[in-house]
Amino acid sequence: MSSISFAKGHGTRNDFVLLLDPSGELELSAAHVRFLCDRRAGVGADGILRAVRAEAVPEWDGPGDQWFMDYRNADGSIAEMCGNGLRVFLRYLAEQGLVDSAERVPVATRAGARTGWFLPDGRVAVTMGRVQLGEQVEVRLGEHSWPARAVSVGNPHAVSALRSDESLSELDLQSAPIAAPAEVFPAGANFEFVVSSGPGEISMRVHERGVGETASCGTGVVAAAAAAGGSEHCRVRVRGGELEVDLSGDEAVLIGPAVIVAHGVVDWPDELG
Amino acid sequence: MSSISFAKGHGTRNDFVLLLDPSGELELSAAHVRFLCDRRAGVGADGILRAVRAEAVPEWDGPGDQWFMDYRNADGSIAEMCGNGLRVFLRYLAEQGLVDSAERVPVATRAGARTGWFLPDGRVAVTMGRVQLGEQVEVRLGEHSWPARAVSVGNPHAVSALRSDESLSELDLQSAPIAAPAEVFPAGANFEFVVSSGPGEISMRVHERGVGETASCGTGVVAAAAAAGGSEHCRVRVRGGELEVDLSGDEAVLIGPAVIVAHGVVDWPDELG
Repeated sequence: MSSISFAKGHGTRNDFVLLLDPSGELELSAAHVRFLCDRRAGVGADGILRAVRAEAVPEWDGPGDQWFMDYRNADGSIAEMCGNGLRVFLRYLAEQGLVDSAERVPVATRAGARTGWFLPDGRVAVTMGRVQLGEQVEVRLGEHSWPARAVSVGNPHAVSALRSDESLSELDLQSAPIAAPAEVFPAGANFEFVVSSGPGEISMRVHERGVGETASCGTGVVAAAAAAGGSEHCRVRVRGGELEVDLSGDEAVLIGPAVIVAHGVVDWPDELG
Repeated sequence: MSSISFAKGHGTRNDFVLLLDPSGELELSAAHVRFLCDRRAGVGADGILRAVRAEAVPEWDGPGDQWFMDYRNADGSIAEMCGNGLRVFLRYLAEQGLVDSAERVPVATRAGARTGWFLPDGRVAVTMGRVQLGEQVEVRLGEHSWPARAVSVGNPHAVSALRSDESLSELDLQSAPIAAPAEVFPAGANFEFVVSSGPGEISMRVHERGVGETASCGTGVVAAAAAAGGSEHCRVRVRGGELEVDLSGDEAVLIGPAVIVAHGVVDWPDELG
């Protein structure tokens, strides 16, 4: 049985197993990912973040002298980007001494070039690309419906404004909301429900496409802040903690906590070894 | 920030964080346990198994030259015994070279003295104490009810026999079953639902007291095998895998898999450090 070194970390309770693989030699099958993310028989996480030198990634055609974030979902599928994951990825690179935490750090992702930096208060900031506000739609959940705003943060979102904290906490997100007209979201959508608690302050719950309700969703937080409007800086409270969005520049910036909790070695089961 | 070494393991998907503390010096508060068992912000497990030399445990009045299994639930509360945990505990002691895996190994627990040994096929066997068959009761769940048998394996169980695999898989165990008369279980009960698939072979689902449905419950498996009757050896299929119960001796013996998955170091958060 062979084994592999790992770290475990989280950002607003969105958690990841981190693997260091500079030369991209690791053959990480979907079965390996599912095992690592198995919360009982494996290590347990929402996804895997593999750190590879960009020059070792054939699909990356940008500068090679940076780190590529190979992000995989817990089900083994490949994912483009994850705002909470990117902060945790940067924290890991810094604590491993792989990047200079006093500088802005470029990161290559499947969604393109991103940049991160470390704030004096301990939080991590990451660029999230351009946000595009789309049309008005309607979101339905059970017997309720709300007007909503379509928002693209690379991936599709529908953001609905609710009236009170009570109505937010009473939402039953066990089933998936539906957007109408359906043609606006040909590949489905993430659904954010927000309540404003003051200028530039919102509370949010999120139903992630293909996952269900989650404690936090980085792109969803950015979409919700953009749809809320009225402020270039927005604090967003999610179930997993608090994040901040800066919409003053060309690209949205997501700011929040990122913690490395543990380091270890995991044994592959015989059938994967 | 201080840190602590740990291992992570599971038996039929009942999973544990293991800590080695021979001299019993570790001050393991409920908050520490909750952090370690937190599946997103910590390591993640159903409970903690701390290995302490028995002579360092004031509450243990048996022989001191053995290991004491200090078992804590994920909510930080103290628990007496756990059959799946005991197998994982023994596997850990053996792989750390702390016991001789060719011998029968005595283990001190809050439920008294237990013994474990390692089978040539890789499984671990542990004594589970005496089983007492009790009276007939009725178990209700939603609009259904079944005759059931009260069984004590140190802790209280109510075992109901169902007719088909289909009726077993259709059970809605999101809410807790109820036993009548209630006086039979003054402190509540664990509820097992079983279907016989042949002589000495049953399938089982379990609702654990104070927890909800779980993938496996060691005492529940023993209770179900004893209530099924008809065979001194019983194979019990649970959601997390397969276990075997030997009822031929004075004490029940639970046999099943036990795996150590990972070893690592976890950093205490500042507020716990």
